[in-house]
Amino acid sequence: MAAHEMTYRVPYADTDQMGVVYYANYLTYFERSRTEMLRDAGLPYSELEKRGYFLPVTEAVCRYRAPAAYDQLLTFRSYFKEARGVRVTIVSEVWHKDKLLVEGYVTLACIGHDKKPVRAPDFLLEACRVYR
Amino acid sequence: MAAHEMTYRVPYADTDQMGVVYYANYLTYFERSRTEMLRDAGLPYSELEKRGYFLPVTEAVCRYRAPAAYDQLLTFRSYFKEARGVRVTIVSEVWHKDKLLVEGYVTLACIGHDKKPVRAPDFLLEACRVYR
Amino acid sequence: MAAHEMTYRVPYADTDQMGVVYYANYLTYFERSRTEMLRDAGLPYSELEKRGYFLPVTEAVCRYRAPAAYDQLLTFRSYFKEARGVRVTIVSEVWHKDKLLVEGYVTLACIGHDKKPVRAPDFLLEACRVYR
Amino acid sequence: MAAHEMTYRVPYADTDQMGVVYYANYLTYFERSRTEMLRDAGLPYSELEKRGYFLPVTEAVCRYRAPAAYDQLLTFRSYFKEARGVRVTIVSEVWHKDKLLVEGYVTLACIGHDKKPVRAPDFLLEACRVYR
Repeated sequence: MAAHEMTYRVPYADTDQMGVVYYANYLTYFERSRTEMLRDAGLPYSELEKRGYFLPVTEAVCRYRAPAAYDQLLTFRSYFKEARGVRVTIVSEVWHKDKLLVEGYVTLACIGHDKKPVRAPDFLLEACRVYR
Repeated sequence: MAAHEMTYRVPYADTDQMGVVYYANYLTYFERSRTEMLRDAGLPYSELEKRGYFLPVTEAVCRYRAPAAYDQLLTFRSYFKEARGVRVTIVSEVWHKDKLLVEGYVTLACIGHDKKPVRAPDFLLEACRVYR
Repeated sequence: MAAHEMTYRVPYADTDQMGVVYYANYLTYFERSRTEMLRDAGLPYSELEKRGYFLPVTEAVCRYRAPAAYDQLLTFRSYFKEARGVRVTIVSEVWHKDKLLVEGYVTLACIGHDKKPVRAPDFLLEACRVYR
Repeated sequence: MAAHEMTYRVPYADTDQMGVVYYANYLTYFERSRTEMLRDAGLPYSELEKRGYFLPVTEAVCRYRAPAAYDQLLTFRSYFKEARGVRVTIVSEVWHKDKLLVEGYVTLACIGHDKKPVRAPDFLLEACRVYR
């Protein structure tokens, strides 16, 4: 019952002229975070693709509480929230020290090689449940 | 009572290895779209900053119905949905021909030079109401 | 004997905390510019891929003379410089009004479906020569 | 006499539809690499800015030998090449295992708070010389 955690250093590339991380970049942070979550749960995303599954995003929600700044060492947290049929929802958070900056979630749809929706396979759900 | 529209050609830079536009880029599309909406309503965002107002995003929601592909000429549509105190919500959509690919909204908080929340000024609301 | 020209409005997404366009984005600008050059010369890049050719970049050079800023309407100029065997070089420039901000070039290698280098086909060279 | 090294995992965000890292992203990799080089040499870039110095890029050169792919764990290497007056040149390389994928350099101009060029200060040169 614990979220996955990783750290990330904010490069100049991620900032905008307001002097903070540009809002779209948090979705990239969420991707890094849930990818590492799956890897550390034993299922690298590339392995998932090799087995013929893809996980396009169907919904993304981001709530911005406070801005992240250049050079900060952020902590990304992710955990599995739920699976419903073809859909899997993963929550992600961005922290700086003990302050929650951004939180949100991404819902992914499981599709097969033929690009058709398919029920999330057990080996994916098992990996997801490692961090919940 | 009409949305603002602009077109945008998808560059290689926006695609990912699934052969479609990477999901975070739609938030950048939303930014382009609402910026041009405000400009065409007579209020360039840079003018807003000159008058001492900033509009950081507090919430962003994206629903992905179908993927956009390289080289497609997309249409971005945006319109003002509502204002509540310091917050302004703008809906954005991404279309290819007559197909809606992605829809969502962004809620912006109005802040002044001192970085404190401030009620959205009338000249901003008037500009917003041009496209609703 | 004229360069291809297109305009581009700088979004917030492209800026960094120095208040100017982040340096890597100019390579994306170059891509937009040479892609439109080829399209207006009658050869959309997607058509090139359909015919079984790809043009990965083998060298990119950028010289930064002055910064571009948020909301500026830039002009991208591109023209064909030379072709040598499998390689094609295209020069690109970024202007604001009558001021040259950034200039550089990109050398592309022509490869076929088998990912092996192949001499640039005549229909590509003909398209390139429209803007030189 | 050794280059600085760090590792970086390629996210989906960095790939394009050719299934490899998009060419402009290597300049972002170079930025991450030289920033960590300076930090590990005792001079975080944010410290440099606090002391009133900025290092805008005046020239960037990238040579692409082989593509990097999604999920690869890359190694970024950087080292100081030379300083001439206001300019400092740093070489960067991107490796996957024992294969050099991309190499290049970036020349930075030292400017002060007044945005005027200024000779690179000794404390910067000393930090640079840690990795050469």
